[in-house]
Amino acid sequence: MNLTVLGCYAATPRTITNPTSQVLEMQNRLFLIDCGEGTQVQLRKNKIKFSKINQIFISHLHGDHCYGLIGLVSTFMSLARVNDLHIYGPKGIKQIINLQLRLSNSWTNYKLIFHELTSTESEVIFEDEKVLVRTIPLKHRVYTNGFLFQEKMGERKLDINAVQEYEIEKCYFQNIKNGKDITLEDGRIIPNDKLSFDALPPKSYAFCSDTIFDESIVPLIRDVDVLYHESTFLDSEAHLSGKTMHSTAKQAATIALKANAKQLVLGHYSTRYPSIEMFREEAQTIFQNVLLADDGKSFEFD
Amino acid sequence: MNLTVLGCYAATPRTITNPTSQVLEMQNRLFLIDCGEGTQVQLRKNKIKFSKINQIFISHLHGDHCYGLIGLVSTFMSLARVNDLHIYGPKGIKQIINLQLRLSNSWTNYKLIFHELTSTESEVIFEDEKVLVRTIPLKHRVYTNGFLFQEKMGERKLDINAVQEYEIEKCYFQNIKNGKDITLEDGRIIPNDKLSFDALPPKSYAFCSDTIFDESIVPLIRDVDVLYHESTFLDSEAHLSGKTMHSTAKQAATIALKANAKQLVLGHYSTRYPSIEMFREEAQTIFQNVLLADDGKSFEFD
Repeated sequence: MNLTVLGCYAATPRTITNPTSQVLEMQNRLFLIDCGEGTQVQLRKNKIKFSKINQIFISHLHGDHCYGLIGLVSTFMSLARVNDLHIYGPKGIKQIINLQLRLSNSWTNYKLIFHELTSTESEVIFEDEKVLVRTIPLKHRVYTNGFLFQEKMGERKLDINAVQEYEIEKCYFQNIKNGKDITLEDGRIIPNDKLSFDALPPKSYAFCSDTIFDESIVPLIRDVDVLYHESTFLDSEAHLSGKTMHSTAKQAATIALKANAKQLVLGHYSTRYPSIEMFREEAQTIFQNVLLADDGKSFEFD
Repeated sequence: MNLTVLGCYAATPRTITNPTSQVLEMQNRLFLIDCGEGTQVQLRKNKIKFSKINQIFISHLHGDHCYGLIGLVSTFMSLARVNDLHIYGPKGIKQIINLQLRLSNSWTNYKLIFHELTSTESEVIFEDEKVLVRTIPLKHRVYTNGFLFQEKMGERKLDINAVQEYEIEKCYFQNIKNGKDITLEDGRIIPNDKLSFDALPPKSYAFCSDTIFDESIVPLIRDVDVLYHESTFLDSEAHLSGKTMHSTAKQAATIALKANAKQLVLGHYSTRYPSIEMFREEAQTIFQNVLLADDGKSFEFD
C-alpha cells in the first residue's frame, strides 16, 4: 500500500503549496482522492500514469478539493483515454462536469460514469475482487464523505516445501490457497494449515478530510492501518475549528487514538503556521505514530 | 502599456507550460485576458496584485482558456476582495461559475457581475474615461471573441515654458490641456498649439486567440500597435489548422501584415515543437516585428 500526496494544504493553491489531492495505490489499483486545482500538473510532476487511474473519489464540493477535476477529465480526452472513468462524489458533481463539457462542445471519448452520493450513513461504493471502499460520513460546512479503503483478505500462501514433501500435484494448489484440506491417494487427509501459511493481513486506509472533530466516525475506522485526518489548525486556533468545521492536530490525534489506528497522517494544514512540524509535535502529545503529509511526498505502508 | 504573459501554450497544463492567460496593463488598469487552470498561481508567481484586477475577459469556453476562473473567483473571496469584479465572456459562463458557487455553498462577498456575450458582430463591451474594449469576433470550434483594447486620446501636454512666458495662471492649465485657445488680459488670443504639445498617440492591443486564419478581422484591428495572434502550428502542420480551427505562424504573420500592425506577438503554441523559435523564424518570412510570448515574460510597449 502506497500513498502519494499531491497536495495537502488548506484553501487556495499557491506557488509552493497545492490543495488536496492524493493517490492511493492498493493491490495495484490507483485511486485518486480529491482533485484540487492543479492536480493534473501534480500527477505529471510525480510521474503517476494517468491511464492507471480509473476511480476518482471526491470528498466534497469545496474548490480546494474538486476544482481540478474538469481539467483532468478534459486532459484524459486529449490523451485519448480508452478505459471507463468512475467518479464518486456528492450530488451535483455530474452537473458541474457535464455543463462545462457541453458548453465547450466537448464530449469524452471514454465512458464517464458518475456515482453521486447523498447518503448520510456509511455505504459501500466500490468493490472488486481485491478492494472495498466505504464512505465515512463527515461533518463539514457542506455534504462531505471520507473514504475507507480496505483490502480483502488475500489467498493463503502455499508452503512449497510441504506440498513437495506430500507430492501434491499443481492442479490442487489453488484449492490449498483457497484454504481447503487435501486428501492424498492413500486416503490420508492433510489439513490446510500444514500446506499453507496465513495470507498477509489485509491493509486499510481511511481518508478523513474535511471534518470537524467528530467521534462518531471512530467505529467506522476502528483498527485502521493508516488514518489520514485533516488538521487545519493547531490547538491555539481551536476557537476557529468550530466555525469553519475543521479539526486541530490534537483532535486528529484523539480520533487516531480512540480508533486504535496504527498510523496517523496529518494534512490539510492552514498556511498560517511557519512550519508543519508544529502539527506533529502537537499530535504526538496524544498519539505517537504521526506522519506529516506534504506535497510530493510518498509513503510506503508495508 | 505592458503585457505579462501568464501562460501561452495550447491544450493541457504541464509541469513547465501553462494554458492561456495574460495581464494587460493599460492606463494603470489591469485587464486579465483568459484564465486557464493554474492562472491564480501564475498571478502569484508574477507578483500581480489580485486586487487590481477588476475586469476579466474570457475568449471562449474551452478549458485551456477558462478552467482557472472558478478558482480565481473563489480565491478573491478568501482574500476578502471588496471591489466589484466584471467578467466578460460567452453565454454560459455565468451558469458555470454560479453552479459551482451554489454547490459549494459559497457566495462572493464582493459583487460579481457577468457580461455574457452572444453577438457575432464587433461590439464595445467596456468603456471608461481612458480605455475602450471591443470584441473581435473570431472563428473557432465554439463561439469565440478576441478583444481590442484601445487607449482613448489623452490630454495635450502643457508647454511649461510657453505658459510661463505668457504668464498664464494655473487655473487655465486644464483648459489648455483640453485643447482650448487662451485669451490674455490684453485681448491677444494665443492659439492652443503655441501652449501645448500633442498628446502621446493612444496605444492599442488586440488579443486574437483561438482562431482559424480569418482575414475578416483585418478591418477591426487595422493599424493596431500590438497584435497577439495565436499560432498553434507551423506551416508543416497547416493541414491540421482547418480541422482544429487554429492558425499557423505564417497565417498569424499574414494577418499582422494585412492589418498593418506595428508589432506581432505569437503564442498558443502546440507543444509538439522542440523550440518556439521556430514560430518566430517562420513568421518573419512574412512580417518582421515578431515577439514570442512565453510563460512569465513581460513586454513593455512604449
